[in-house]
Amino acid sequence: MKDNLFKGVIAYPITPFDDNGQVNIPLFKRLVERLVISGSHAIAPLGSTGVLPYLSDEEKEAVTEATIQQVSGRVPTLVGVSNLTTEKTIYHARFAEKSGATAVMIIPMSYWKLTDDEIVDHYDAVASKISIPIMAYNNPATSGVDMSPALLKRLLEIPNVTMIKESTGDIQRMHHLRKELGEGVAFYNGSNPLALAAFSAGATGWCTAAPNLIPELNIALYNAIQQNDLETAQSLFYQQVDLLKFIVAKGLPRAVKAGLHLLGEDGGTLRSPLKPLTEGETEELKHILLRIPEKSHLDHLFI
Amino acid sequence: MKDNLFKGVIAYPITPFDDNGQVNIPLFKRLVERLVISGSHAIAPLGSTGVLPYLSDEEKEAVTEATIQQVSGRVPTLVGVSNLTTEKTIYHARFAEKSGATAVMIIPMSYWKLTDDEIVDHYDAVASKISIPIMAYNNPATSGVDMSPALLKRLLEIPNVTMIKESTGDIQRMHHLRKELGEGVAFYNGSNPLALAAFSAGATGWCTAAPNLIPELNIALYNAIQQNDLETAQSLFYQQVDLLKFIVAKGLPRAVKAGLHLLGEDGGTLRSPLKPLTEGETEELKHILLRIPEKSHLDHLFI
Amino acid sequence: MKDNLFKGVIAYPITPFDDNGQVNIPLFKRLVERLVISGSHAIAPLGSTGVLPYLSDEEKEAVTEATIQQVSGRVPTLVGVSNLTTEKTIYHARFAEKSGATAVMIIPMSYWKLTDDEIVDHYDAVASKISIPIMAYNNPATSGVDMSPALLKRLLEIPNVTMIKESTGDIQRMHHLRKELGEGVAFYNGSNPLALAAFSAGATGWCTAAPNLIPELNIALYNAIQQNDLETAQSLFYQQVDLLKFIVAKGLPRAVKAGLHLLGEDGGTLRSPLKPLTEGETEELKHILLRIPEKSHLDHLFI
Amino acid sequence: MKDNLFKGVIAYPITPFDDNGQVNIPLFKRLVERLVISGSHAIAPLGSTGVLPYLSDEEKEAVTEATIQQVSGRVPTLVGVSNLTTEKTIYHARFAEKSGATAVMIIPMSYWKLTDDEIVDHYDAVASKISIPIMAYNNPATSGVDMSPALLKRLLEIPNVTMIKESTGDIQRMHHLRKELGEGVAFYNGSNPLALAAFSAGATGWCTAAPNLIPELNIALYNAIQQNDLETAQSLFYQQVDLLKFIVAKGLPRAVKAGLHLLGEDGGTLRSPLKPLTEGETEELKHILLRIPEKSHLDHLFI
Repeated sequence: MKDNLFKGVIAYPITPFDDNGQVNIPLFKRLVERLVISGSHAIAPLGSTGVLPYLSDEEKEAVTEATIQQVSGRVPTLVGVSNLTTEKTIYHARFAEKSGATAVMIIPMSYWKLTDDEIVDHYDAVASKISIPIMAYNNPATSGVDMSPALLKRLLEIPNVTMIKESTGDIQRMHHLRKELGEGVAFYNGSNPLALAAFSAGATGWCTAAPNLIPELNIALYNAIQQNDLETAQSLFYQQVDLLKFIVAKGLPRAVKAGLHLLGEDGGTLRSPLKPLTEGETEELKHILLRIPEKSHLDHLFI
Repeated sequence: MKDNLFKGVIAYPITPFDDNGQVNIPLFKRLVERLVISGSHAIAPLGSTGVLPYLSDEEKEAVTEATIQQVSGRVPTLVGVSNLTTEKTIYHARFAEKSGATAVMIIPMSYWKLTDDEIVDHYDAVASKISIPIMAYNNPATSGVDMSPALLKRLLEIPNVTMIKESTGDIQRMHHLRKELGEGVAFYNGSNPLALAAFSAGATGWCTAAPNLIPELNIALYNAIQQNDLETAQSLFYQQVDLLKFIVAKGLPRAVKAGLHLLGEDGGTLRSPLKPLTEGETEELKHILLRIPEKSHLDHLFI
Repeated sequence: MKDNLFKGVIAYPITPFDDNGQVNIPLFKRLVERLVISGSHAIAPLGSTGVLPYLSDEEKEAVTEATIQQVSGRVPTLVGVSNLTTEKTIYHARFAEKSGATAVMIIPMSYWKLTDDEIVDHYDAVASKISIPIMAYNNPATSGVDMSPALLKRLLEIPNVTMIKESTGDIQRMHHLRKELGEGVAFYNGSNPLALAAFSAGATGWCTAAPNLIPELNIALYNAIQQNDLETAQSLFYQQVDLLKFIVAKGLPRAVKAGLHLLGEDGGTLRSPLKPLTEGETEELKHILLRIPEKSHLDHLFI
Repeated sequence: MKDNLFKGVIAYPITPFDDNGQVNIPLFKRLVERLVISGSHAIAPLGSTGVLPYLSDEEKEAVTEATIQQVSGRVPTLVGVSNLTTEKTIYHARFAEKSGATAVMIIPMSYWKLTDDEIVDHYDAVASKISIPIMAYNNPATSGVDMSPALLKRLLEIPNVTMIKESTGDIQRMHHLRKELGEGVAFYNGSNPLALAAFSAGATGWCTAAPNLIPELNIALYNAIQQNDLETAQSLFYQQVDLLKFIVAKGLPRAVKAGLHLLGEDGGTLRSPLKPLTEGETEELKHILLRIPEKSHLDHLFI
């Protein structure tokens, strides 16, 4: 069995911008700190939540270094280094390793839909240039390519590709992965509304931006599963599912930023063309948060 | 809360034909008896598994009466009475009630995609003509119409529409149902590969043809869920998921009939244009069955 | 090259019902007569427009005989005989032939998705029992099965399967058919909004319910294509496309009946669960008709 | 009516790389020259064919300047300037204008699916910073967002957004555009296999990479349409449709480069992770080219 450094709730910070549209590194560090002290089991900067594709090389490097510095070894770090070209992916993967990342996450970004051989060679080229583990990430909605279980199996033959993150939103895909890859291979759920179903199906961890807003519920769900207590897990899931669906439907960076503001936290600005939630959407989010037991006492904080 | 007469494993018998293409009622009764004595919690004739739409009115009536006679009150019965026209649906629903069915199941068959108002009026017209409960069944793949949670909510306002069967195969739909309809409304899972996820999400029962082949595993899965033992449920699910996927992929009547034959049971013939599984498919099914612990001792039975 | 008995505008009458829900044969004959005298090149009863699947065997027979009697050889007839079971399809195909139909149309109705072999055997079984030609009809939206060009090629090897009707709504499918099947095989377009594109791609005919409402425009479009006058064809198409889209979106029987009423014609009633267009939809249809040059003088007729 | 600077065959050059993975500008200029002298009505660098998203800012600038220098005013130029962020899109649009581009093409790239308001503001921000016309480009397959005809209508209210390129591959969308936007607004087809259907529907131009390989057929098709000769257009279309489908299915940069090589032209290398066609695919392309009348004499050139 391959070692799995990651389990439980893997938290994705947003990348906040200042009023001039520049990445606000001090604020980013504060947001990372919130995730660590709220009990997240790992920190994953530069994911979709962190608007990776909208950042320049220098900004990606600054975010990588800020994460590792702030986390300071308290939990493992999983740095997103995906890029359209192989050369750039290698560049960022090496930077992450040199900076002290525990592992890197790579999705096969595809403007032109990649063939299976192109994908295998892409991962292989990157893997050969670093020594830390790689989490291969399947999310056809953002990458434009759907990696079949058979392809993922090929990727796992590359020595340091050790983990699979699956975000198709189809629970049957996870059953398939478990059957195809065997119990020894860790798979991670990246679809928030599938959190309960994926843990029920045996997922090792949950990659999520939700701990920016409701870390207690996210972690309690994982703990209930660990304790083999399905009833409690189900009850906890239904307390948070509306929020999970909302943040996915509205786009994670927009929704998390709006939620932070509602909770009295600074989430910075968004980079154009992304715009804040509308007033109506913000109101909807407020009501979703207020219906969550652990948040209802925060009523006075809300605008 | 509305009373729920059905829970657990709701077993769907196939409708066997003889060599002249006529329904074989004595054989049908034997197949129903197998389902009852193997511990199924209810019997549901004239579903998709029972090739309802391929039968004449007289055949449907004979199957209805044979079921109720054979079950003889040991478990509840849920009789399929769906028809393209409202008039015929009423006719069969009344026949089922008169014959002693516990409840009827109705899917809004739609050659022409029905509007929400047409669907509500259709259920309303049938419901007003019978006193037994109705399970409303959503399965866009066979009915051609996808009933939204909002529409299902409207249907539940009809007094004797008390249960929802959901077969979109999307677990998020079940979360939505639970949140929209409240815990008081029972929902049933009709998608075999979703068995674990649906029970985890709170489904009251599982409508399935699988007990024709692997009743022990189906019932054990339900029991593990009842005992709040997710680990055991997960293990049991992974033992049966390959079979569940196979019978869905190949068509339930074809696959169940082939499986019965492999297990040394008579499943009769199929009605044209349906044809038996190919040799290769039958071989695949045999291997799936042999990998199931409880079936492996049956090796000698297999052809 | 196989002989093609059909070309141009193949008109589909609706099946009208009386106030007791019974088929109104005298009214049906009047509607068929309208189609013939308006210049339609063929008459096709018992299609989707004619709500074939909602009719009893006796009703289908009455409609078949009424069509052939009324048309009286002035144009060819194409009678729908599709049924879920092979036995019933044979029964109705033989009845159509005996009654004098020019050809029959068969779609592989599929409650259980049929395999390619099942479909070939189904057509073969029917074809061997009749001598008149068969039009094989592909419409995954209503039949539940999408026949690939390769499968259609297999069907065309059956001697009296001589024509293909294609209703996927994807123009690229027609290009594929033309390339795969060769210029010798006639293909017919069954997707109304694709009328111009399909004729441009070389379709031999257009299977449509539109001549119930706008026969002049339908036939003029075909004539422009025959005269190799694309500009005129384009202009005529854009005059009718809103109506074509509307009748498809709302369901052909509902929309045609409403349109007949707006034009001062009796279209009878619909069979439950189908209901008439809403007032708003009827108003929308009225405005679409009034924007059509040839109908605008009918303003006084409209309610 | 807004002025349309573009009509006919708008040719997309590939961006060739040298053996070190750098853009080969001299070779690019030769490829542009081929397109101009073969009769293309406009040149459009930095499209999907030109692998825009895989290039650095400096490379985009070099390609822009090389195009304008090489074309030297003989035909208009349409430069792709799309970028995930608004700021970068403005940057490249201004560069294109300053360099002498006739117009720019912008697709709303969307890692995070953009709202309609975000898209309008994005175009508005760019449009306000340049004076040359903008072609708004809808291609959900690559951009991740499908711009509705209603949204496109809003974009056309921005003064220098004057043209629409549509690549959904659905001919009905073009009918809708023509009806919604009126005859005054030019729409361009970006789906190669839809070339005949789109021209039949009234498209002003065809945005295509095919002139890299078969310019004579592409231009002849346009000319036949201009002469209102549908029969000839149909015949010409069926001569080229296999090639059009092939280059789309395999990815334009890969397929064009392979085709150039087969025709004895240098197409340079691809940038990783993109890889050349496999041997089998190249063989398939060779046979497709050899079946095209105008290419069959090139047999001796082929490897």
